[in-house]
Amino acid sequence: MFTNTRTWIVEWGDCDPAGIVFYPRFFAAFDTSTSRMIEAATGKTKAALLRQYGIIGWPMVDTGAKFMAPASFGDEVQIETRVTKVGRSSLNVAHRMFKDGVLVNEATEVRVWAAARKDGTPGIEGVLIPDDLAGLLRGD
Amino acid sequence: MFTNTRTWIVEWGDCDPAGIVFYPRFFAAFDTSTSRMIEAATGKTKAALLRQYGIIGWPMVDTGAKFMAPASFGDEVQIETRVTKVGRSSLNVAHRMFKDGVLVNEATEVRVWAAARKDGTPGIEGVLIPDDLAGLLRGD
Amino acid sequence: MFTNTRTWIVEWGDCDPAGIVFYPRFFAAFDTSTSRMIEAATGKTKAALLRQYGIIGWPMVDTGAKFMAPASFGDEVQIETRVTKVGRSSLNVAHRMFKDGVLVNEATEVRVWAAARKDGTPGIEGVLIPDDLAGLLRGD
Amino acid sequence: MFTNTRTWIVEWGDCDPAGIVFYPRFFAAFDTSTSRMIEAATGKTKAALLRQYGIIGWPMVDTGAKFMAPASFGDEVQIETRVTKVGRSSLNVAHRMFKDGVLVNEATEVRVWAAARKDGTPGIEGVLIPDDLAGLLRGD
Repeated sequence: MFTNTRTWIVEWGDCDPAGIVFYPRFFAAFDTSTSRMIEAATGKTKAALLRQYGIIGWPMVDTGAKFMAPASFGDEVQIETRVTKVGRSSLNVAHRMFKDGVLVNEATEVRVWAAARKDGTPGIEGVLIPDDLAGLLRGD
Repeated sequence: MFTNTRTWIVEWGDCDPAGIVFYPRFFAAFDTSTSRMIEAATGKTKAALLRQYGIIGWPMVDTGAKFMAPASFGDEVQIETRVTKVGRSSLNVAHRMFKDGVLVNEATEVRVWAAARKDGTPGIEGVLIPDDLAGLLRGD
Repeated sequence: MFTNTRTWIVEWGDCDPAGIVFYPRFFAAFDTSTSRMIEAATGKTKAALLRQYGIIGWPMVDTGAKFMAPASFGDEVQIETRVTKVGRSSLNVAHRMFKDGVLVNEATEVRVWAAARKDGTPGIEGVLIPDDLAGLLRGD
Repeated sequence: MFTNTRTWIVEWGDCDPAGIVFYPRFFAAFDTSTSRMIEAATGKTKAALLRQYGIIGWPMVDTGAKFMAPASFGDEVQIETRVTKVGRSSLNVAHRMFKDGVLVNEATEVRVWAAARKDGTPGIEGVLIPDDLAGLLRGD
């Protein structure tokens, strides 16, 4: 399965009065990591993928995370992001965040490849992940 | 177990280019809901609890969420937040978010009642939840 | 000129390791205040205004703020938001934030009533503020 | 005066339903740029500066920004950050953000070198910027 690793630097504004990352900001970092992984797998930017495939993105439907150790402003961490399953219109992803080689948290995601509803009513619906992209995401 | 419900209005800045809530902002809303629930159970503000009990807060150690339907700017939703377990130094919480009476997402949390390390080394550690607060959180 | 006041509660996640509001979150609060003021003036939601007038919003073109005193989590503040000028396609707004009746910060804004470019090229452009809305915003 | 330039990549979560950066996120980017500039000038991390000099940070007291062109997710921009004045306890900074060499926005800041009040009452107060740091920030 396709895997991508990126570096993320924790900023002052990501942290709360306890001096550690406000955990919703970890999810923002994971969201960026998933996009970077899809971009690396497909060789296309998110903006290009949205235009080319007529999708609105890959919204989250199910996510979970375990936080083993805190992180704080100035920390430089590595986020390893790998595809764990490519469904017909869903994508499972796992993240592991390391600080100085130590696992500080991990997360799983189920996302849906989504477009505006074809019948014109407001809202979004899952659409098929194109075969060529599915193959690239699986790392075939 | 103690339960508290609050209203949250989704703002423009909570939403992404797909026009729906950027999911990390749901976690920010859940974080506020947990604090409001603890404040309602104990009758004290978060600032007062931190001062009185010498804690740095109740950081997240494990969370998961399922998103059944999107929400968008201007939506007024109800978040029902209930204690599901009070451990020695941990607190389990569940959230359900409703829009017009329909469940749009739900989340679970395990948090730790945390203080700065007593031995003076940097970092935080779980401390006992005081009996009186534990009783109030259980809704005894 | 039309004026609207709303209450805002500072949350834990709005604050930084110094224990005070991370100032970009004040701008997020001002952004909400401007939208609430426009909604109050016109009697329509932002979503309805976007749909009815074919605009993408009222993006910021020039803003400034002075922060006289900090605010922290749990603080309940009042934000008074008033129109200071209605141009052909621009809107000037001023905010004043009060805590317990004391001014803690103030801001000014110039926004543009904006739509997608009519010639189909990517990007946005200012469009005329409809006369009826301009009148309501002036408080005529 | 000391100047530092860094690259910032606009993420999906920085953008709003109009598809462009939600402007408070530009201020978050400027805040990071100021910290990176101070770190580059002094050769110390923000965490080290806070510890060594007993300060809580450099909170904003006055800021203004002009937004000439929007930016969107995937955009890679350069933020040039320069000191414009070093006062006794205040620091003036200017930012210019460029996309493909074109100026998209600019901002000015007045910040205060701040510590917890010496008399023990809650709150913060400006303290003298140490001479050696002032010299480094001026680029002497």
